Amino acid sequence: MKQSDIAMVGLAVMGKNLALNMESKGYTVTVYNRPHPDRPSVVEHFINGRGKGKNFLGTESIPELVNSLSRPRKIMMMIKAGQPVDDVIEELLPYLSPEDVIIDGGNSDFHDTERRVREVESKGLYYIGTGVSGGELGALHGPSIMPGGSPEAWSLVRNVFQAIAVRLEDGSPCCEWIGRGGAGHFVKTVHNGIEYGDMQLIAESYALLKNWMGLNNEEMAAVFAEWNKGELNSYLIDIASQILRFKEEDGNYLLGKIRDVAGQKGTGKWAVATALDEDDPLTLITEAVYARMLSALYQERKLASDLYENAITLRNEFDKDELRQALYAAKIILYTQGFSLMQRASKRYGWDLDLGTIAKIWRNGCIIRSIFLQRITAAFREHPELENLLFDDFFFRKIQSSLAAWRKVVSEAIRGGVAIPAMSSGISYFDGLRTLSSPANLIQAQRDYFGAHTYERIDREPGVFFHTDWTGVGGDTTSGTYSV
Amino acid sequence: MKQSDIAMVGLAVMGKNLALNMESKGYTVTVYNRPHPDRPSVVEHFINGRGKGKNFLGTESIPELVNSLSRPRKIMMMIKAGQPVDDVIEELLPYLSPEDVIIDGGNSDFHDTERRVREVESKGLYYIGTGVSGGELGALHGPSIMPGGSPEAWSLVRNVFQAIAVRLEDGSPCCEWIGRGGAGHFVKTVHNGIEYGDMQLIAESYALLKNWMGLNNEEMAAVFAEWNKGELNSYLIDIASQILRFKEEDGNYLLGKIRDVAGQKGTGKWAVATALDEDDPLTLITEAVYARMLSALYQERKLASDLYENAITLRNEFDKDELRQALYAAKIILYTQGFSLMQRASKRYGWDLDLGTIAKIWRNGCIIRSIFLQRITAAFREHPELENLLFDDFFFRKIQSSLAAWRKVVSEAIRGGVAIPAMSSGISYFDGLRTLSSPANLIQAQRDYFGAHTYERIDREPGVFFHTDWTGVGGDTTSGTYSV
Repeated sequence: MKQSDIAMVGLAVMGKNLALNMESKGYTVTVYNRPHPDRPSVVEHFINGRGKGKNFLGTESIPELVNSLSRPRKIMMMIKAGQPVDDVIEELLPYLSPEDVIIDGGNSDFHDTERRVREVESKGLYYIGTGVSGGELGALHGPSIMPGGSPEAWSLVRNVFQAIAVRLEDGSPCCEWIGRGGAGHFVKTVHNGIEYGDMQLIAESYALLKNWMGLNNEEMAAVFAEWNKGELNSYLIDIASQILRFKEEDGNYLLGKIRDVAGQKGTGKWAVATALDEDDPLTLITEAVYARMLSALYQERKLASDLYENAITLRNEFDKDELRQALYAAKIILYTQGFSLMQRASKRYGWDLDLGTIAKIWRNGCIIRSIFLQRITAAFREHPELENLLFDDFFFRKIQSSLAAWRKVVSEAIRGGVAIPAMSSGISYFDGLRTLSSPANLIQAQRDYFGAHTYERIDREPGVFFHTDWTGVGGDTTSGTYSV
Repeated sequence: MKQSDIAMVGLAVMGKNLALNMESKGYTVTVYNRPHPDRPSVVEHFINGRGKGKNFLGTESIPELVNSLSRPRKIMMMIKAGQPVDDVIEELLPYLSPEDVIIDGGNSDFHDTERRVREVESKGLYYIGTGVSGGELGALHGPSIMPGGSPEAWSLVRNVFQAIAVRLEDGSPCCEWIGRGGAGHFVKTVHNGIEYGDMQLIAESYALLKNWMGLNNEEMAAVFAEWNKGELNSYLIDIASQILRFKEEDGNYLLGKIRDVAGQKGTGKWAVATALDEDDPLTLITEAVYARMLSALYQERKLASDLYENAITLRNEFDKDELRQALYAAKIILYTQGFSLMQRASKRYGWDLDLGTIAKIWRNGCIIRSIFLQRITAAFREHPELENLLFDDFFFRKIQSSLAAWRKVVSEAIRGGVAIPAMSSGISYFDGLRTLSSPANLIQAQRDYFGAHTYERIDREPGVFFHTDWTGVGGDTTSGTYSV
């Protein structure tokens, strides 16, 4: 009997579509889904359904799955992140042999992946934690793939991964090795954080087009379609236009019927938690995560909207092209912050991330795919150690040319009462970064005043700390334990 | 030999001053500091220094410390949070008897305190984790104290805690029982988060007074002193004024010599992490935490300020009183968010927090003490279940009357290039909350479009989820595992 090339554990939407994608590229794929005593077999349903007549082998147990594979075995999990991943690893381990590869393609916390790589490698096996982006259709037709983990395993999975990945115009696959340990899942976490930011910026633009300029769905769809032809060309702008035009069978637009309560499944929060760990001001993504949480407080919003319904002031006007420039400038800040976080984490974890390549494999297949990413690749190709995208010449010129429109849109939206948390946090970050004499000296003075936390002086070397007895009655002890 | 009433473990600035405070109220205090082989005894230095001639008993070992105490023993730790606290608990346990109380007065993570309460109670002893705020001078003369943990221990420590706590005008002490488990340390974490927010809002006001209005130190000190006479009356406004006036021996103002790099010791980040856990949009405090991180990126700021030095546009004017109103409105949002987080965590952990009392014990002694807190106590006394301070009548009127000034200051600062991340995030939260039809419907549509994440409909019950095949080529499977 011919043995399979790879196994897929977990046949929810992503696992199923990735398996179909692999099979369509000439691979024989073993499929498995944990059997449930009270439900019909998911595997059987798939084999007799979308998998019918194709090179799939359905299995109903782990030993059966393992025995069906040629060696070294490659077993990919597309299952719920967390404990289920550890459970499947534990089930698999007794049946595997040296150099077999376990692959986790779900959205796992990269800290977990760091640990699992160590644990699985200690048994003589290999482990890969990989980001897979592109949603349902991407998984089927070509996702962007971000694998990291055991470096020795890359040559074993490279062919199949690059075969199923989407390609760029020049034929190169949107799948390259990211780095050791949890690097792949970390990069996917940042990708998802950026996705939150991109979606929030588009939502804020939609709010301004709709509530401020009074455009109808077709007009807004036309605006996004127009923007999609230029430097904002991207998947999320494109689908915003499609969504605005989409009508239900009764002829009414669907978008107006969708409740404005945004869900989230946690990877945006993880990006924020990582930023806190790295002391990295990831403000725009954080505001986007919070905006979803705020949208979910429906009862409070109902009460507040009744109470404060007229809470706006008069405003000036801005036009659609000014809004486009503001969106573009805020998007630069979003990516500046995301890439800064990767730069910082790469140093801390020793991953040696190639940021230009990461921008490149995001150019197609994944949710944040856009023409814009070419510029980021170019920036890092020119200066691999670039600390901040705002120092790149292209982005410098873009910010300069759009700055007046950006400031105008944000300040007028604030006057007019349209919530733009992501756009405005972007401009505050920009102004904070470009301000050499920030008011943080007052913060340091206050911390020293009430807590003896000490401060540095501009007329002395950094790293030398001073304490002042501001009131004449404080002690001479500086703070060792009191934390503010 | 007379036995001591209480012991203090850890003689850094806070522990020393709390011990002196206790002794001054008539208590005999055993003091202990972990001996270091290469350094002179901290205990001896204290006993022969500030503790000289007073009712202190210096001890150099844990058994000696335990034996010096009357029973049930009360042992308070003022040491570095984290592992050192677990180490001291472990050292103490073998020597203690049922009903003895171990108290942690440091800034511990409330999750750790939850665990320690369980562990210590399982040995038949009691445990208290308490917030102590007021800094160096507060510890000595009267801090605000927020104890939580084993309820049985409250009657054992109440006298000494309320004796050393600062008092309000009516004589009531700023120390009341907060709740079970980690409630005390949780409330202290929120206090510290609010402190970050308050300090950032004052710093932003200082930046506007200095860089926008061109006021000098004496003029700014006068502005803060003036504000301190009215509804903004608070410790942090008061010391801002003192700091602005403070001169070094050479006659120059000290503030201008302090490097604008703000430090932090983690409790602000904890508040943010808790908000993420609770799905609570704690935007203003988060921006304040990030602003400190951004201030610490000195080299990047140097480069950015060279590149983008003229990146401002023309602006209109606003006056000092408009700025005062903006600061007050933003402060309302800051406390709205902080109290909302407490409301939510109280439900989740079953702490049954009395928010009116918490506002009351913050009215004196602690860093965020202010006249403003009276209004919060009043709001919760009237409606203990108030979901959001913005629904209280007093705060409603305040927001309405200051809204025009608030919008003007924020929008003009954005035009003028002054970074005001906290003030602007406050206004975005307000506008987000009061917007009934938010653009989150587009976010939900996009999530369903690319990831089959489903959405709710306004013409159906909440909690019923729909999926649309937007492109006509997607599958009928909704997302079970793919997380965005």
